[in-house]
Amino acid sequence: MGPRDKQGFGMNHESPLLFTARWVLGPEGVIENGCVHIAGGRILAVCPREDVPASLMEKQPGTEHRDLGEALILPGLVNAHCHAPMTLFRGAADDMELLPWLERRIWPLEAELTREITFLGTMLACAEMAAAGITCFADMYVWSNETARAVHDVGLRAVLSEGLLGFPTRSYGSVEESLALTRSFMEEYAAHPRISFAPAPHTAFTSTEEQLVQSYALSKELDSPWLIHAAETASENSRVLEMHGQRTIPYLDSLGCLGERAVLVHAVDLTPEEVEIIAARGAKIVHCPRSNWKLASGMAPVHALGAAGVTMALGTDGAASNNSLDILGEMRAAALGAKIRQMDPTALPAAEVLAMATRNGAAALRLPGSGMLKPGQPADLCVLNFAGPHLQPCHDPLSHAVYAAQGSDVCLTMVDGRIVYDHGAFPTLDYPALLEAGHEVQAHMRKVLDRKGRQER
Amino acid sequence: MGPRDKQGFGMNHESPLLFTARWVLGPEGVIENGCVHIAGGRILAVCPREDVPASLMEKQPGTEHRDLGEALILPGLVNAHCHAPMTLFRGAADDMELLPWLERRIWPLEAELTREITFLGTMLACAEMAAAGITCFADMYVWSNETARAVHDVGLRAVLSEGLLGFPTRSYGSVEESLALTRSFMEEYAAHPRISFAPAPHTAFTSTEEQLVQSYALSKELDSPWLIHAAETASENSRVLEMHGQRTIPYLDSLGCLGERAVLVHAVDLTPEEVEIIAARGAKIVHCPRSNWKLASGMAPVHALGAAGVTMALGTDGAASNNSLDILGEMRAAALGAKIRQMDPTALPAAEVLAMATRNGAAALRLPGSGMLKPGQPADLCVLNFAGPHLQPCHDPLSHAVYAAQGSDVCLTMVDGRIVYDHGAFPTLDYPALLEAGHEVQAHMRKVLDRKGRQER
Ligand SMILES: [Zn+2]
Ligand SMILES: [Zn+2]
Repeated sequence: MGPRDKQGFGMNHESPLLFTARWVLGPEGVIENGCVHIAGGRILAVCPREDVPASLMEKQPGTEHRDLGEALILPGLVNAHCHAPMTLFRGAADDMELLPWLERRIWPLEAELTREITFLGTMLACAEMAAAGITCFADMYVWSNETARAVHDVGLRAVLSEGLLGFPTRSYGSVEESLALTRSFMEEYAAHPRISFAPAPHTAFTSTEEQLVQSYALSKELDSPWLIHAAETASENSRVLEMHGQRTIPYLDSLGCLGERAVLVHAVDLTPEEVEIIAARGAKIVHCPRSNWKLASGMAPVHALGAAGVTMALGTDGAASNNSLDILGEMRAAALGAKIRQMDPTALPAAEVLAMATRNGAAALRLPGSGMLKPGQPADLCVLNFAGPHLQPCHDPLSHAVYAAQGSDVCLTMVDGRIVYDHGAFPTLDYPALLEAGHEVQAHMRKVLDRKGRQER
Repeated sequence: MGPRDKQGFGMNHESPLLFTARWVLGPEGVIENGCVHIAGGRILAVCPREDVPASLMEKQPGTEHRDLGEALILPGLVNAHCHAPMTLFRGAADDMELLPWLERRIWPLEAELTREITFLGTMLACAEMAAAGITCFADMYVWSNETARAVHDVGLRAVLSEGLLGFPTRSYGSVEESLALTRSFMEEYAAHPRISFAPAPHTAFTSTEEQLVQSYALSKELDSPWLIHAAETASENSRVLEMHGQRTIPYLDSLGCLGERAVLVHAVDLTPEEVEIIAARGAKIVHCPRSNWKLASGMAPVHALGAAGVTMALGTDGAASNNSLDILGEMRAAALGAKIRQMDPTALPAAEVLAMATRNGAAALRLPGSGMLKPGQPADLCVLNFAGPHLQPCHDPLSHAVYAAQGSDVCLTMVDGRIVYDHGAFPTLDYPALLEAGHEVQAHMRKVLDRKGRQER
C-alpha cells in the first residue's frame, strides 16, 4: 500500500489563516497578544498581533481570522516514543510484575491482533494524541504499515518503525526479512509529506548483532534516525553483559551504533561513564518517566544527561504501561521526577521540559522543521485553553503548561496546516464509529482474558 | 459571621434523584449498569439498575431519572490537605529554592491579601475542586472564616482551620488568641451541616508547645481531628531536634499529641521506628506526593506506612506548590511514586489508592459518613465521563480512574445531595464573574512582583 491520495480528509487549511491568542510561544519566548499567520501549510509569521503587516495580509487574500482568546499557542507536542496499537491494552493489566504481565495479559491479547485491529488501535491512539496536542510521534510495533495507514488518514506527523527482533514476528520470518521490510517501508514512504520510517532494533538483547549493525548502516544510507530501547532497567544491562560481555551502552558503542542518529529510549540504568559516552557520540535520549515509574524500571538520570549536553526528548511509551498518550502529563512528571531524584527544587525547570516536549523531540527524530513556531516551518501547533478553574489565575502561561494544564485543556491541534482536533471535534476521523469499534474489540479481548483466567485456576 | 441561610444557592436536589451509569463504585466493588438513588440529600440505594425496587420509586414520587451513560459514579473525592486561598499564587513561583521562593514571591504576595481577596482565592479553589470531583477538603490558612464563607456559598464539605503559629498573624496577636479563635470557630460552626473547624498547629517548630498541647486537648474536648504539617523534610526534623531534643514524631508523642485524632500532613522524613509509633498510636497521615516532589522534600514511605496499618489519605497541598487541586492526578502520582520508591510494580495498586482518595480521607477527617456510596450516607459523589479518547477502550474502570483519567473527565459533582458542578456549569457560583475577579487580582499581584523584581536588581 502506498500513501493514499491526500485529498478528501476533512478540513484542509491550505487557505490562509490568522490565529490570535492571549499568548503565543515564539522562538524567543512568550509573545503577549500574539498571532500566528499560516498559509500553504506553513508558518508565515509569529509576532505580536499589531505587528502583522497589512502587506502580508494583502498578499494572502481571504485570510480567515480566528481569535482563540484566553489561550496559549504552543508548537505541536512531540511524543518521541510510543507503541500506538497497544492503546487497545490500556488498563488491561496494572500493578503486576513484568513476567505475569506479559504471560497472562499482553501476549494473549497480542495473539488476538489482526491487521484491522492493529489499524484500529492506531486510530484510537491518533485520536488521543491529536486531542492532547501531539502533532508528531515516533512508533515501534509490528505491522507498522497499518500504523502508517492510520497516521496517514488522521493527518499526524510520525516516524514509524517495525520493531526488529531476532526471531520471527507477524511481519517477517527472519532477520534478513526484518531488514528488507524496514528498507522497503523507508523507501515507500520517502516522499510522504508527514510520514517516514526508521530502523528500530527492539533492544540490545532481543535484536541480533546483525540487526543492530545493518540497521544502523541503513539509517545512514537512507538518512533517518535509529530507534532502540536502551538501558531501560538494571536487568537489561545484566542480560546484555551476560550475552555480550558489556552493558548496553558500551556494547552499542563497540558496534558503531551510538552515533548522532541513535535515539536511546528510556536511558534509565546508566553509569556516569555511560552518560559521558552518550554525550560524546551525540546520541539522543527519550525520557519516558511515567512508564518507567509504573513498571518500577528506575528514575532516569535526567539531570546528569542534561548537564552533559545530551539532547533529551519526551515519550509516553505504550498505553499498556503509562496509561496515557499525553505529553503534557509527561512534562509535569519529568519536571517533578527530576526534582525529587536530585532533591533539588530547581532541577529541570519549566522552560527546559517544554523544550524536551517540542524542539528536542523534533531534533531527536531529525525533523528540524518541527518543534518551533517560526516562519517557514510547517504549521504544527496546539492551543491550550486557559478557561478552566485549574488554570486561574495565570501569572505565567508556561508554568501552567508544565505544572497545571491537563491534556484535555488542548482545544485545537494543527499538523502541516490542517486542523486535526478542534474543541472536541475530529475533522479527519469518524469519532463515534471509532468508539464503537473500540468497544467491540474490548468485548472480544475481555472474553480472551476471562478464558485465560479460567484456565489458570 | 455565622453560617448563612442555606436557601437560594442554585439547584438543590432535595427532590429524589436516580442516577444510572455504566459503572458505579459501591462498597463491595464496581457494579456494572448500576444506579444511585438519592433523596433528602442522602443515598437511598446503590445497586444494579434492575434491582431498584418499584416500591422504592413509589415511596419517592417525582424521582427524577438521569442516565449518565458511559460513566463511572465514584464516592466524592477527599482532598485531605490544602491551603485554598493560595490558589491565587499558582505558578507565581516555580523551580526555586525554599527561601527565595518565600522571600521573593510568597511573602510579598501574602502581604497583599485582604479578607476579600482571601475569600476570592477560596472561591477559585472551590470551583477548581468541584470541577475535579472533590466533595470534601481540609484546609489550613489565615482568616479561615473567609474560607468558611466561600465553602458555605459553593456548597462543598470541609474541615477548616486557622494555622496556629507562635507569632502574631493577621488573624490573631498572641498564642492565647490563636487558641481562643480556634475554639470560637469550632463552636460557631458546630451545627453547620457541611463545615467544621479543627485545631491545626502549623508545625512542631513554628507552633509553640502550648499551642500543640492545648490544641490537642481542644480537639478532644470538642471532638475533632487535629491537623499538623509533620516530618515534611529532613531539615524540619533537624530543626525540631535542635529545639526540642527530639525529632518531630517522638516530640509530638512525648507531648501526648500523637493519638488517633492526629492527622500528620506529609509524613515524608520518617525512620522505621517513627512509622511504628504512628501506627501504634492510631495517628493518620496525609500523603501529598506532587507537592513533596516539586519542593524536593522527599518521597514519603507510603509502602512502610501502609504495611504498618496506618490510615493514609491524599492531599494536594496548596496550589503554590502543586500546582493543582486535583486528587485524580494525586492518585496517579501516589501509585507511580510508591512503585518507583519501592522498585516494585505491584506497590500501591489502584484499589488502595482509590481508598486513600475517598474513605481513608473521610476517616482521617473523622467524617465517617463520607467516602463511600452506601445507603444512609450523605450524597457526596462525583462522576467520571468515559467518552474521551484517552479512556478508550475500557477493560477496567478503576484502572482508568487511577491511571488514565484527568480531573477534567469529571462531569458532575454532588455534595450533600446538591449538584455543585455539572458538565462545565457551576450551579452554586457565578463563574464568569469569578474569572474576572481572579484576573483583576492577578494584574495587581503582577505589579507587586514586578516592583519587587526591580528592587532586587
Ligand atoms: Zn517502548
Ligand atoms: Zn501544607
